[in-house]
Amino acid sequence: MITEVTHRVNFFDTDAMAVVHHANYIKWFEIGRVDFLRKNKITLTEIMADGYIFPITNVSAKYISSAHYDEVLVIKTIPTALTKAKMEFNYEIYRQCDSAVLVKGYTQNVFTHRDTGKITRLPEKYYNRLQQALN
Amino acid sequence: MITEVTHRVNFFDTDAMAVVHHANYIKWFEIGRVDFLRKNKITLTEIMADGYIFPITNVSAKYISSAHYDEVLVIKTIPTALTKAKMEFNYEIYRQCDSAVLVKGYTQNVFTHRDTGKITRLPEKYYNRLQQALN
Amino acid sequence: MITEVTHRVNFFDTDAMAVVHHANYIKWFEIGRVDFLRKNKITLTEIMADGYIFPITNVSAKYISSAHYDEVLVIKTIPTALTKAKMEFNYEIYRQCDSAVLVKGYTQNVFTHRDTGKITRLPEKYYNRLQQALN
Amino acid sequence: MITEVTHRVNFFDTDAMAVVHHANYIKWFEIGRVDFLRKNKITLTEIMADGYIFPITNVSAKYISSAHYDEVLVIKTIPTALTKAKMEFNYEIYRQCDSAVLVKGYTQNVFTHRDTGKITRLPEKYYNRLQQALN
Repeated sequence: MITEVTHRVNFFDTDAMAVVHHANYIKWFEIGRVDFLRKNKITLTEIMADGYIFPITNVSAKYISSAHYDEVLVIKTIPTALTKAKMEFNYEIYRQCDSAVLVKGYTQNVFTHRDTGKITRLPEKYYNRLQQALN
Repeated sequence: MITEVTHRVNFFDTDAMAVVHHANYIKWFEIGRVDFLRKNKITLTEIMADGYIFPITNVSAKYISSAHYDEVLVIKTIPTALTKAKMEFNYEIYRQCDSAVLVKGYTQNVFTHRDTGKITRLPEKYYNRLQQALN
Repeated sequence: MITEVTHRVNFFDTDAMAVVHHANYIKWFEIGRVDFLRKNKITLTEIMADGYIFPITNVSAKYISSAHYDEVLVIKTIPTALTKAKMEFNYEIYRQCDSAVLVKGYTQNVFTHRDTGKITRLPEKYYNRLQQALN
Repeated sequence: MITEVTHRVNFFDTDAMAVVHHANYIKWFEIGRVDFLRKNKITLTEIMADGYIFPITNVSAKYISSAHYDEVLVIKTIPTALTKAKMEFNYEIYRQCDSAVLVKGYTQNVFTHRDTGKITRLPEKYYNRLQQALN
């Protein structure tokens, strides 16, 4: 399953070069990732309530073209690995009006115990939903 | 006691009008407030560890002139009320090189119990430090 | 005309008290304001292309209750003064699921010339649209 | 030349997992990069005034351990390529009190003409300073 969610560029997302500041896309990968999980019936609130957290361990982005104020962007989220130990996603952010690809990205999360901070394996109930999400 | 702390404007603090986006100053009031408390031997980490939180209940800002990329700003923090129930501060943010006042602000925090969310009164040990901070 | 636009709380909008950091609401007032103007056929891009900018001169917020991760918020934007010299808005941000009012706010913008930085009066073509927006 | 600059973690830098949100480190790479350039007599304001901009084309980060509120971090900036066409840097962000490495990163900027958006080569006067910075 590949998901898409839109984000309209706010004035506060821009910088003095009159384009979106590059750090914002890292946040928007999160919007895509959370939306992907939500559409697959996985809410981070529920996982956290069960004592798990899911820190980001790797992120990368390749910037191809700039977004500007008020443009509507589409965040496309493509799962590449969803195991009991980690989640990996690719992203493509493109401009809705002309489909120009602006940024491509990648993130990796691992599952850890909230209390111990130790890396752990995700319980079956979440893992099953993640597996279904891959198909 | 009035405290001052500096902040150099980052590129990511600016917006497409090539000036600092106005919402950043609200964050910088927090830098001033935390710095004021730290200089008076009060760390928010310690208060939180004791089960108290201190949500903002009111904020206001008057914008007089704009700051630009790379300028060094001084955040001046002036306590106006530090009671067992709340903290109130005024702020002045001015440009270091020419002392131009850019923004004047005000915030109010109340003390609440982390677990219940109910408004509470700060224990004596913190209150005493706050009182000394006012002198 | 009163407008409403939604914003879902992102993980990156929260802070270590597990609620939305208060500075974000100031950004969300901007989302409301821009949405109000867009729905009234006024785009900031067009005004800027004509050489006008519209810096914020005053902002205030009263925080009533906290928003949490993943909650859908409604930003309600109420124009209170739209003249050739300035725009004033009130805001109410409430939680969509239970209509609880979380934050009330106010902003004032003035119109200035981009090149001179001087306060100016908005041309008739924009003013007319603003006037219609008030009705 | 390798440079170091400190950043104290603000409350607004944290998220609901009570650690620094990962997107902030991307901003802090910028603090390191700008500080590196400033210490080598290169200010972005001067380059921009000459009609050049320097968009980020690639960024990556590996997250090793979490930073918390009020910790003082050191941003270490290591130039790896400074040519007329691009700048590449590695970063290490470590906690000042115990020297624990938290994040390692990489960025690439290219130089482009502000007006045309075309990739360009940096004039000799800046290039010479960049070359000296490498030694």
